[in-house]
Amino acid sequence: MSEPTIEINPIGVVESELRDPAAAPNQGDEGAPSAWLVFEAAVLEALDGIRAGDEVVVLTWLDRASRDVLRVHPRGDRSRPEQGVFATRSPDRPNPIGLHRVQVESIDGVRVRVRSLEAVDGTPIIDLKPVLSSEVGER
Amino acid sequence: MSEPTIEINPIGVVESELRDPAAAPNQGDEGAPSAWLVFEAAVLEALDGIRAGDEVVVLTWLDRASRDVLRVHPRGDRSRPEQGVFATRSPDRPNPIGLHRVQVESIDGVRVRVRSLEAVDGTPIIDLKPVLSSEVGER
Repeated sequence: MSEPTIEINPIGVVESELRDPAAAPNQGDEGAPSAWLVFEAAVLEALDGIRAGDEVVVLTWLDRASRDVLRVHPRGDRSRPEQGVFATRSPDRPNPIGLHRVQVESIDGVRVRVRSLEAVDGTPIIDLKPVLSSEVGER
Repeated sequence: MSEPTIEINPIGVVESELRDPAAAPNQGDEGAPSAWLVFEAAVLEALDGIRAGDEVVVLTWLDRASRDVLRVHPRGDRSRPEQGVFATRSPDRPNPIGLHRVQVESIDGVRVRVRSLEAVDGTPIIDLKPVLSSEVGER
């Protein structure tokens, strides 16, 4: 069973003061700064309906990650036993897709300002989705 | 500003009784059945640590979606005004990545049974992540 390769074209890029992946917080709620999502002009129409205050999920391509890693110490803490990468949020994984839940602060054309994003400057953006109400509360 | 193309290799496939995308629920909590995530043998180790009862996020590639759609009527309801696809969970979007939050029911080697998955049979799986506690409650 082997599936064909999928081709993804980035739809934008993260513009952030975070430049060093090693120094970036592991998660957005661990002190990450606000950042800009700068979309390609070609997808401007797809942003229609996004508003300040919205909770969104940003999907990124963690282009500095290692794709051949299957096991890691959670949060890089060697005192914790290794786990499979699918049981962790390690950026190192076969398809290093970042999943960032953030709130929109403001919008200026193709530039969307979001709060507490842990992705570093230059990270490609591959999708943007609204958070569903069923994903907000406990279920 | 144009980013290089990204290549993603599926890590598995959805095995489900759902076969017709038009008949499938829009979201998992709208009556979707349990389904199997069948992973490639090469990534078995990456599943270590996933347990029955875990809340996980499955990322899929919605291979039947249209990638040139930028605006849609939300939920296909033509009485609702069109919105940009990034403000909706429409499968039609430049990079049709499906985001499914589900609970693990059981695990058997590379086969992981999950509850309420709206993806149709044969949908490629591209990543699997645990839900973070910060994503469970309100914030």
